[in-house]
Amino acid sequence: MKNTIGRHVCCTIFGESHGSAIGITLDGLPAGIAIDEQFMLEQMNKRKAKGRISTQRHEADLPKIISGVFEGYTTGTPLTILIQNNDQHSSDYEKTKNRLRPAHADYTADVKYLGYQDYRGGGHFSGRITAPLVAAGAIALQILKNQDIHIASHIIKCHTVSDDAFAQSEDQLKAQIQALRSTSFPTIREEAQIAMIKEIEAAAANGDSVGGIIESAVINVPAGIGEPFFDSLESIIAHYLYSIPAVKGVAFGLGFGFSEHTGSEVNDSIAFENNRVITKTNNNGGINGGISNGMPIIIQTCIKPTPSIYKEQDTINKATKQAEKLIIQGRHDPAIIHRACVVVDSVLALAILDCMMERSAVLALQNKRKED
Amino acid sequence: MKNTIGRHVCCTIFGESHGSAIGITLDGLPAGIAIDEQFMLEQMNKRKAKGRISTQRHEADLPKIISGVFEGYTTGTPLTILIQNNDQHSSDYEKTKNRLRPAHADYTADVKYLGYQDYRGGGHFSGRITAPLVAAGAIALQILKNQDIHIASHIIKCHTVSDDAFAQSEDQLKAQIQALRSTSFPTIREEAQIAMIKEIEAAAANGDSVGGIIESAVINVPAGIGEPFFDSLESIIAHYLYSIPAVKGVAFGLGFGFSEHTGSEVNDSIAFENNRVITKTNNNGGINGGISNGMPIIIQTCIKPTPSIYKEQDTINKATKQAEKLIIQGRHDPAIIHRACVVVDSVLALAILDCMMERSAVLALQNKRKED
Amino acid sequence: MKNTIGRHVCCTIFGESHGSAIGITLDGLPAGIAIDEQFMLEQMNKRKAKGRISTQRHEADLPKIISGVFEGYTTGTPLTILIQNNDQHSSDYEKTKNRLRPAHADYTADVKYLGYQDYRGGGHFSGRITAPLVAAGAIALQILKNQDIHIASHIIKCHTVSDDAFAQSEDQLKAQIQALRSTSFPTIREEAQIAMIKEIEAAAANGDSVGGIIESAVINVPAGIGEPFFDSLESIIAHYLYSIPAVKGVAFGLGFGFSEHTGSEVNDSIAFENNRVITKTNNNGGINGGISNGMPIIIQTCIKPTPSIYKEQDTINKATKQAEKLIIQGRHDPAIIHRACVVVDSVLALAILDCMMERSAVLALQNKRKED
Amino acid sequence: MKNTIGRHVCCTIFGESHGSAIGITLDGLPAGIAIDEQFMLEQMNKRKAKGRISTQRHEADLPKIISGVFEGYTTGTPLTILIQNNDQHSSDYEKTKNRLRPAHADYTADVKYLGYQDYRGGGHFSGRITAPLVAAGAIALQILKNQDIHIASHIIKCHTVSDDAFAQSEDQLKAQIQALRSTSFPTIREEAQIAMIKEIEAAAANGDSVGGIIESAVINVPAGIGEPFFDSLESIIAHYLYSIPAVKGVAFGLGFGFSEHTGSEVNDSIAFENNRVITKTNNNGGINGGISNGMPIIIQTCIKPTPSIYKEQDTINKATKQAEKLIIQGRHDPAIIHRACVVVDSVLALAILDCMMERSAVLALQNKRKED
Repeated sequence: MKNTIGRHVCCTIFGESHGSAIGITLDGLPAGIAIDEQFMLEQMNKRKAKGRISTQRHEADLPKIISGVFEGYTTGTPLTILIQNNDQHSSDYEKTKNRLRPAHADYTADVKYLGYQDYRGGGHFSGRITAPLVAAGAIALQILKNQDIHIASHIIKCHTVSDDAFAQSEDQLKAQIQALRSTSFPTIREEAQIAMIKEIEAAAANGDSVGGIIESAVINVPAGIGEPFFDSLESIIAHYLYSIPAVKGVAFGLGFGFSEHTGSEVNDSIAFENNRVITKTNNNGGINGGISNGMPIIIQTCIKPTPSIYKEQDTINKATKQAEKLIIQGRHDPAIIHRACVVVDSVLALAILDCMMERSAVLALQNKRKED
Repeated sequence: MKNTIGRHVCCTIFGESHGSAIGITLDGLPAGIAIDEQFMLEQMNKRKAKGRISTQRHEADLPKIISGVFEGYTTGTPLTILIQNNDQHSSDYEKTKNRLRPAHADYTADVKYLGYQDYRGGGHFSGRITAPLVAAGAIALQILKNQDIHIASHIIKCHTVSDDAFAQSEDQLKAQIQALRSTSFPTIREEAQIAMIKEIEAAAANGDSVGGIIESAVINVPAGIGEPFFDSLESIIAHYLYSIPAVKGVAFGLGFGFSEHTGSEVNDSIAFENNRVITKTNNNGGINGGISNGMPIIIQTCIKPTPSIYKEQDTINKATKQAEKLIIQGRHDPAIIHRACVVVDSVLALAILDCMMERSAVLALQNKRKED
Repeated sequence: MKNTIGRHVCCTIFGESHGSAIGITLDGLPAGIAIDEQFMLEQMNKRKAKGRISTQRHEADLPKIISGVFEGYTTGTPLTILIQNNDQHSSDYEKTKNRLRPAHADYTADVKYLGYQDYRGGGHFSGRITAPLVAAGAIALQILKNQDIHIASHIIKCHTVSDDAFAQSEDQLKAQIQALRSTSFPTIREEAQIAMIKEIEAAAANGDSVGGIIESAVINVPAGIGEPFFDSLESIIAHYLYSIPAVKGVAFGLGFGFSEHTGSEVNDSIAFENNRVITKTNNNGGINGGISNGMPIIIQTCIKPTPSIYKEQDTINKATKQAEKLIIQGRHDPAIIHRACVVVDSVLALAILDCMMERSAVLALQNKRKED
Repeated sequence: MKNTIGRHVCCTIFGESHGSAIGITLDGLPAGIAIDEQFMLEQMNKRKAKGRISTQRHEADLPKIISGVFEGYTTGTPLTILIQNNDQHSSDYEKTKNRLRPAHADYTADVKYLGYQDYRGGGHFSGRITAPLVAAGAIALQILKNQDIHIASHIIKCHTVSDDAFAQSEDQLKAQIQALRSTSFPTIREEAQIAMIKEIEAAAANGDSVGGIIESAVINVPAGIGEPFFDSLESIIAHYLYSIPAVKGVAFGLGFGFSEHTGSEVNDSIAFENNRVITKTNNNGGINGGISNGMPIIIQTCIKPTPSIYKEQDTINKATKQAEKLIIQGRHDPAIIHRACVVVDSVLALAILDCMMERSAVLALQNKRKED
């Protein structure tokens, strides 16, 4: 479905970096959800460029809801959010439009769209297109919050600097999630934040860029969510996450670390505590057999270094096919990982919400448990 | 869509480990594809259990095509493949059916299906359900081969042992892919194979299990495949891969390794060689902006250690909620990673084929390139 | 999705008239539904050929469930039903395979599948492919019956003979639905049945065929089902019905009769009776704005005369492109409308069930009504 | 998918009658289509209210493309069209918001959306929501025109007045389609137009409304389009048409008329003329077995009388559940059938285009015809 995702809350995204507006339509939202515009703005702010560690393009990013909300509540019909583009410097791009930027979508979009794509600022491939996702995610996060489901992400690794992993203890984890809510450079340890910002500033000073790994946690998702065989919870979450530009790795629980252990070391023992089934460890990241098990869902997402750098790079001119040296013009980010955290939270909320609704669809008709 | 995946070649999978048969329906195949049953059997054989490093359940695994093929060619209507189950030992499972096996889907399936799931041998969650996928994948691989597209996987890591990564040189890579075709324990270096088999035997002797990482390469996929925003090539491939039981990590190109580098280190420079656009390195694994760039597509897939181990584990009895010790009965694999390679190849073939057809859908109507 | 339909209970159909077996997979069924095999067989019997008014091909049509049912209950995982083909006379078709049968899919399938289609008995285009639909529909009808939702169809018109329309009074309608359950040539008035059978026999004697109109009623569907804009209840029901071979018209309530009235004549007045909102007439067939209103859903489906007739017809030889006279060999039905009624009931059940589950998906999260 | 339709050119529609704007997103369009804004405006004009036979609400209906078009050509990324609402009289609706309008979606929307729907002017259920469809359809019609495929509709029946049916002769049909292009009250015979307008004016004078039947023709669709079993061309077209508010019947070729004939009377004989396969009659409306046969596709669509009438009607107050008399306030149409013709053309174009792209997806890989 290309630019639409979701079976229940279907998101359709549109717009280009230098067009008049970008936006998103959410179809299938429950009716009667009170829209918290303040929260939406807070989320938008987390994604905004800031200081020396971000691009100097500054957009107001005020999401305007043009349908699907009436007297402050969702109507249940499609909710469309528009965000105007204001601070474009399109001329920055016209000069170099034939020089294909390495590690960008310039070449692939050119092949795919036969040269008709809007190349300015990356067009539909710009990271800017994640802004409507954050506005949409704010609504999904609200709905989940009503069910006491919470999501947070932090930068567990930024180039050479590491942060602590999320706590295993549920109380601690809950406190960490709470603490992460108000920060726009989310780490668990403050020193990690300081060191990471330094790394990014150093990269910026050097005309270079860095990436990293985001760790995310979703708590209180009930057991039973996910639709294997092909719509395992991991499949759905990974599908959503890999739509975020610059994501090159997605893993669950121990993730690639599983390869270093034996089954007896990493199998999560099962216990019954506080009137519910739990696992004593959570190496599987809250998912077994593609279905949530009630434990925190733990996800790692790798963000590659921003491809836009100020250093000279080797490329070709797409018109002449000749080799050329490229120094990228325009304003860009030496790192996007801190801005990406809220985008990750947003798509996780949309993914989890959708999977929960899929579950509800069948539950209404299968309400009697088999006697053992 | 739960047990159906694909927009063009739609796969619907069905069956349980101890039911009468398992199978798959492929809908939307092109008509006129000659079915190479010999190749299908070879692929099935690669997935089969073998020797001390595998389960002692031995199934003939003869795929029978019951529709969609006429006089040796695909008809273009749904092609259904059935595989009989023969060597079930269902009684192994009845005794311990209330003891939830750690890291398995026992608990999550029980919650999801309210106790009605077929628990024997993992039911629909058994690795056995991947057998029809391999039969289906054989057809997809054939169609891609007709387009000179080739896919191969090897075990780049098995517990403590590592193999070489795929070669950067295209000629070497082609030779490696060719060489991997005939092996059922695929590694690039023979010594890696020997050492890995030793690791697995050691785990088996210890009643334990191991996992690892599979590296896959797909060559000659044309540039322009993939449908961002939400159906980036990474999103689609990851969605398919995460449906394979035991997969806990999927990454592209450098994958999580991107977090350790700066943009200037990993941006793939662009050049024009042999009359086509290439990148001098392939850190992005053949995908930029969610669209193939014509370079080899490189994927890493992490397989966790088989959760079935012979060691005693802590769990609960689902009926009584009491803690119990569990020693898993039945026949199982100390490692599945070698058997998983052909499953990974199969789903990659299905995923890539589907994305190529999506591209064809639009190409017919947009056949004139913009003049620059 | 071609051979798959449904968002929640996804049906994937496969098989050819003269292949080894035909079948269907139902994915997404609620777990814990007791399978009533007796009822399934009764439904299959209604579709079976009978007497002089049907084809002389006689198939046992015993549906065999090979997955998704365990100990008598649905498991919630894909349920696959197989039906063996036994009584094929393939040689009837080989002789005339190049002579395109008028009003059949011979020519269109040949173009679409480039000559690779299984032409014997119409292949995948045979009315025989509706047998698995009836087996699947039996399960859907059972689930709906658990919710007190009932479906029945009768032949309101067969060539020159008409039956009464369904009663407006709900009690009478309920009795009519009950009475229709046990008949395999469903009409409301017995004389209509007798006269219609005579018509069919006359057509048969003349080597000709007839069609007609089926009127269907679905009662007790709650108000609120249907997903406009594009998935109006009419859109979904029509989509399902038009997959049945030979259907050429689908209408709701007054249907095409609406064109003969003014708004004031046909607007259904609204009243509050027996503690619920009703309409005093039901010209809209239980659907307003694409959403069920709680009144009986009334549907008309037009079935064209069976295209297979014994009379000589003008056609061409597809190999030579020359005009040829064709007298169709093989066994066929002078009318299928009586056999089609149970097929219509089946797809209606699948359609309504799916729409109800779509509604349930959202209901769980929107449970508080706005205060007026 | 509720408010999204299409597999290739996916349309997502949004907005309410009295919101700030309504719109549509088209995703999956081929790149490089020159946008003919003049043609889009002409199509919009056909849908506009006019004279005494239409509502007095007058909207400029200027579609504004905010994404997916760059330098006059489609980019291949989502194309979003916005249409501002300007001439709302919301207060007309506030006074009577609790009085459920008969034959409208007031009651069903109220149940579905729990009272949160925007009731003003019918909200998302307003016929106004078809305006973006016409803008979108203009683009689809253009793309089809590039393939020499043409679509036209006329009012074959309006209450008591009938028009001629489309001609059987292809040349005549082509001329009729051409002639219908420029009219905003489309009939084949001028006298029919005059008589129909009189009917509508008489209904208007009487505070009443009328409906009718639209006949549509699509010419030059190649044989082979349509995806049975479940996505027969009839299924897809009916699905789209039934999303248009007020449609209560859809039929193909002879449609319900099939019930009055025998097979020998209506089977379309096959011939080979002018180097292509044709049928001598076209009773099947260009579709056999759910697949186009190259003949004109002929569709009948029944539009019920506008439910908004000025006469007093019986209804209830939804808050009090008491019976009340209702005289609908606001501006409304005594007939919408003339305005609906262009909407029908638009959705037909979107449906056919989508089916053609589905066909292209598979064609690229199945390009060799079987030798007979």
